[in-house]
Amino acid sequence: MDNKFPGKDITIEDLKSKFPLVAKKNKNHRSTFNVSGVEFGKDLVIFAGPNMVESKELIFDVAKNVKKIGAHFLRGGAFKPLTFPYRSKKYRETREDGIRWLSEAKEKYNIPIITEIMEEKYIPLVAEMTDIIQIGSRNMQNYPLITACAKTKKPIMLKRHYGASLRDWLGAAEYILVEGNKKVILCERGVSVPHTHRSTSRFLLDLQVIPAAKEVTHLPIVSDPSHATFWRPWVRPMALASVAAGADGIMLEVHPDPKNAAVDPLQPINYKDFRSLLPEMIKIYNNI
Amino acid sequence: MDNKFPGKDITIEDLKSKFPLVAKKNKNHRSTFNVSGVEFGKDLVIFAGPNMVESKELIFDVAKNVKKIGAHFLRGGAFKPLTFPYRSKKYRETREDGIRWLSEAKEKYNIPIITEIMEEKYIPLVAEMTDIIQIGSRNMQNYPLITACAKTKKPIMLKRHYGASLRDWLGAAEYILVEGNKKVILCERGVSVPHTHRSTSRFLLDLQVIPAAKEVTHLPIVSDPSHATFWRPWVRPMALASVAAGADGIMLEVHPDPKNAAVDPLQPINYKDFRSLLPEMIKIYNNI
Amino acid sequence: MDNKFPGKDITIEDLKSKFPLVAKKNKNHRSTFNVSGVEFGKDLVIFAGPNMVESKELIFDVAKNVKKIGAHFLRGGAFKPLTFPYRSKKYRETREDGIRWLSEAKEKYNIPIITEIMEEKYIPLVAEMTDIIQIGSRNMQNYPLITACAKTKKPIMLKRHYGASLRDWLGAAEYILVEGNKKVILCERGVSVPHTHRSTSRFLLDLQVIPAAKEVTHLPIVSDPSHATFWRPWVRPMALASVAAGADGIMLEVHPDPKNAAVDPLQPINYKDFRSLLPEMIKIYNNI
Amino acid sequence: MDNKFPGKDITIEDLKSKFPLVAKKNKNHRSTFNVSGVEFGKDLVIFAGPNMVESKELIFDVAKNVKKIGAHFLRGGAFKPLTFPYRSKKYRETREDGIRWLSEAKEKYNIPIITEIMEEKYIPLVAEMTDIIQIGSRNMQNYPLITACAKTKKPIMLKRHYGASLRDWLGAAEYILVEGNKKVILCERGVSVPHTHRSTSRFLLDLQVIPAAKEVTHLPIVSDPSHATFWRPWVRPMALASVAAGADGIMLEVHPDPKNAAVDPLQPINYKDFRSLLPEMIKIYNNI
Repeated sequence: MDNKFPGKDITIEDLKSKFPLVAKKNKNHRSTFNVSGVEFGKDLVIFAGPNMVESKELIFDVAKNVKKIGAHFLRGGAFKPLTFPYRSKKYRETREDGIRWLSEAKEKYNIPIITEIMEEKYIPLVAEMTDIIQIGSRNMQNYPLITACAKTKKPIMLKRHYGASLRDWLGAAEYILVEGNKKVILCERGVSVPHTHRSTSRFLLDLQVIPAAKEVTHLPIVSDPSHATFWRPWVRPMALASVAAGADGIMLEVHPDPKNAAVDPLQPINYKDFRSLLPEMIKIYNNI
Repeated sequence: MDNKFPGKDITIEDLKSKFPLVAKKNKNHRSTFNVSGVEFGKDLVIFAGPNMVESKELIFDVAKNVKKIGAHFLRGGAFKPLTFPYRSKKYRETREDGIRWLSEAKEKYNIPIITEIMEEKYIPLVAEMTDIIQIGSRNMQNYPLITACAKTKKPIMLKRHYGASLRDWLGAAEYILVEGNKKVILCERGVSVPHTHRSTSRFLLDLQVIPAAKEVTHLPIVSDPSHATFWRPWVRPMALASVAAGADGIMLEVHPDPKNAAVDPLQPINYKDFRSLLPEMIKIYNNI
Repeated sequence: MDNKFPGKDITIEDLKSKFPLVAKKNKNHRSTFNVSGVEFGKDLVIFAGPNMVESKELIFDVAKNVKKIGAHFLRGGAFKPLTFPYRSKKYRETREDGIRWLSEAKEKYNIPIITEIMEEKYIPLVAEMTDIIQIGSRNMQNYPLITACAKTKKPIMLKRHYGASLRDWLGAAEYILVEGNKKVILCERGVSVPHTHRSTSRFLLDLQVIPAAKEVTHLPIVSDPSHATFWRPWVRPMALASVAAGADGIMLEVHPDPKNAAVDPLQPINYKDFRSLLPEMIKIYNNI
Repeated sequence: MDNKFPGKDITIEDLKSKFPLVAKKNKNHRSTFNVSGVEFGKDLVIFAGPNMVESKELIFDVAKNVKKIGAHFLRGGAFKPLTFPYRSKKYRETREDGIRWLSEAKEKYNIPIITEIMEEKYIPLVAEMTDIIQIGSRNMQNYPLITACAKTKKPIMLKRHYGASLRDWLGAAEYILVEGNKKVILCERGVSVPHTHRSTSRFLLDLQVIPAAKEVTHLPIVSDPSHATFWRPWVRPMALASVAAGADGIMLEVHPDPKNAAVDPLQPINYKDFRSLLPEMIKIYNNI
């Protein structure tokens, strides 16, 4: 046994050998690509929508409004990993119906969509209907699912697990690139921190990971302050801070009636708040 | 908005309502069940074997030896989630071959087996061949996989994700019980801790979770000091400490030639160390 | 024993009863106060200077330059808590000399100063010479020292310990206010996070604590991205993000020759970088 | 700037150069020393007593009982760092009175004592009266206080800060040894962990640090399961696990009437529980 303890840290050398596709080739290497008319890596890309596609009415209303306000993508969950196997009536997954409603909203309001997938069997449906497939945090290390999604060649948003290192996260991204799928978007959504730090929130939005990721990878990185803060009053400051830290996009939970959202009613913002926040984010993006 | 911050902690009340099947019905409620002749919840159950089923020769040699020394179950991985999509030749998954070799070793040396599953498509094979299906840490929140395994009615070992709370973990266990499958074994394998605490190891074995889990659930709980410490010299003290803390079983990486193990060569112990450790663990188990 | 687990979280009620002086009296309550001509809680306050007051020449050079560029306060350490009792020649504390040089630089370049204190016996000297007394992270829970400093009625900057909760931090601030000293400035400087999150840095700048603190206390809060990131390339994005998150001030390590700084040479920025960063921070501050 | 990220981990080489006095000289190097007739590093040393020296009556009653049961040292706090500056009547520090009562209990019941110190001005009193000076977790990085205590040449117990790494902790111990004071006892008392791991307790007893510390230092290490678990039912399993992990001593909160303890009433055990726990710990100690 040698005289070095285990527990190595990521280095740029590690990346070069372990994540050859994810790693930057040179200091200024940045991926830019087009998804349904939106340029990633060039403009600040805004994703907005409810946590869950609760109903056709809801998702149509949100699509119309966030499109008008200026969002690039409509987000909404039709499948959702729940910590418990029990679901209240309000909290039900709309599954295939939800995917169809998202797709109809997309057509009607001319806004591309993104939604989470949890099972391989739904890949054909989701790949056909949506513009970006989202791998949620809890499936960040579900490599068979990631690989199967990657093979569809659809753009993929890979959310970071709340317990995952930058190295774990980039390793999962490499699984997508190795399939020849280059349209990968990273999304930071809050990490689990020592309880002494959490300041009364479940997760802490790790903004330092934005410059860290940008130092080693050419992939665009999005920030989701809604899930991280779990608390409406902190969404605006953390959204602005995300942009200032260098995020290429922001994902926001937007709901017409936040307090009556089917899930996590403490975190969505309403249309009015979204309307005032959007130009603030863009102003910072254009000034840094 | 009310005047309470978000971020609730688990309470016994939460459990009663959210994990009705996992929760203890009364102070002395403890599940005991028989798997292939081994009594869980009564004896100290020992799982031993290599990280990976590298070859038929290796797994036969280990089966013979750990059986003779006193292990109840042979462990070994035929599938393995890797942080990167690239595998050295040495590190290759033996997949269906590995499962078959495990099964042959089981027959030849009369020792039941446990192995990890990562994809639904292998469930029929794994359920037929093995005595216990292992859900690895990285799939602890892969609820569709967990549910599909539960439906086979085979006993399931559910390893805790290194970023998961007790609540997250018990929630995943509830997904198994709700399918009518009562043979669930929890396994602690180390958590990710503030880097200031890690004392140069990747993970920290959370032994406090053993009395915590036993306070709220009737399920047996096993400890895996090999993966947690990632460091051979600490395996023995942490195995003994696990038993003293109340573990119902211990999972150990045992390899005839640890330094040449295909993966994680710093953590397995050899036959000789296993032979001397086993009676020490049993003595503590019988005395507390 | 009741049926609730221990481990309570902070609530606004807790604050009202436990930190009556630190807590906001109403939604818009914010402390503003003047220190040596600088308005806290109104303008973005900039602290700049080297980690250590290495020599008279160095601190004079920095004072002249950061004042010209636009810093409000000159910072520099004459005393420094080191993890080990051994110091290289380069790393020596300049102690009373350092304090005197700071004070002379203050007079010559007309820039108020802030410096850390570690022992009660130096309070008279430091209180006489400096404009703000800094309590470093490692002394955040040294309540006798905090109380003795508070009694001088000098303004105090209280840095957060890297392992401290918001509650711990506000509790320490209450020790100052209870002595009748109302000029308290909080400073976030990075927390210790799970090693899986650290992205190769020792600490993580907790920007979520800025809106969290502002929700419960009227005290101004400053951010120190230099110590948190420990890495020059991340200082600018995290400084901008701090302002966007609502920080009332920014503390930066600025050194004429960063690579040859006596301590932590990977983190200071040079004059040129400071000159270009300052207007960027102000632009964000004025726009949110 | 080189191409390596910052954030190094402790290695044995680091120790050899940075902690020359704390580091083991060879594989079997272990400090043993005698304090008031008790051998550290040879026997399992038991410290028992209340959190606070609430009154003369209490401390006399505890001294008599824990001595009879078999404790080697009586513990009790006369000074106590509180998170807030306010104290209930019940929670008052007894300060000089408390030290005197401890000292009288020591004489009357022939049991050596240990107590915490927080301010230099009390060093002469505490050094004269007690057998071991305790540096509490919150002062682990108060190097001037540690140095001043070290100079008295009294044995010192150095509790680990809940946010401190092994490296930070050993660095603080080196400050004692460098003063020529060799009687240093380390004490693990729980670390702050990701809230997802805490299993409803404030801290997590880090037992993995015991073999980690023993790999690099010759100093004895004690475990305090009472403060770590903060929960009576977990004290026994974590005390036993501490011994099995290799602890040289156990510190326990023992109170005649736990529910009415002046502070932290959820954690002390009573005389009866202490009486049954002691032989269990000794049996494990003698068998490993």
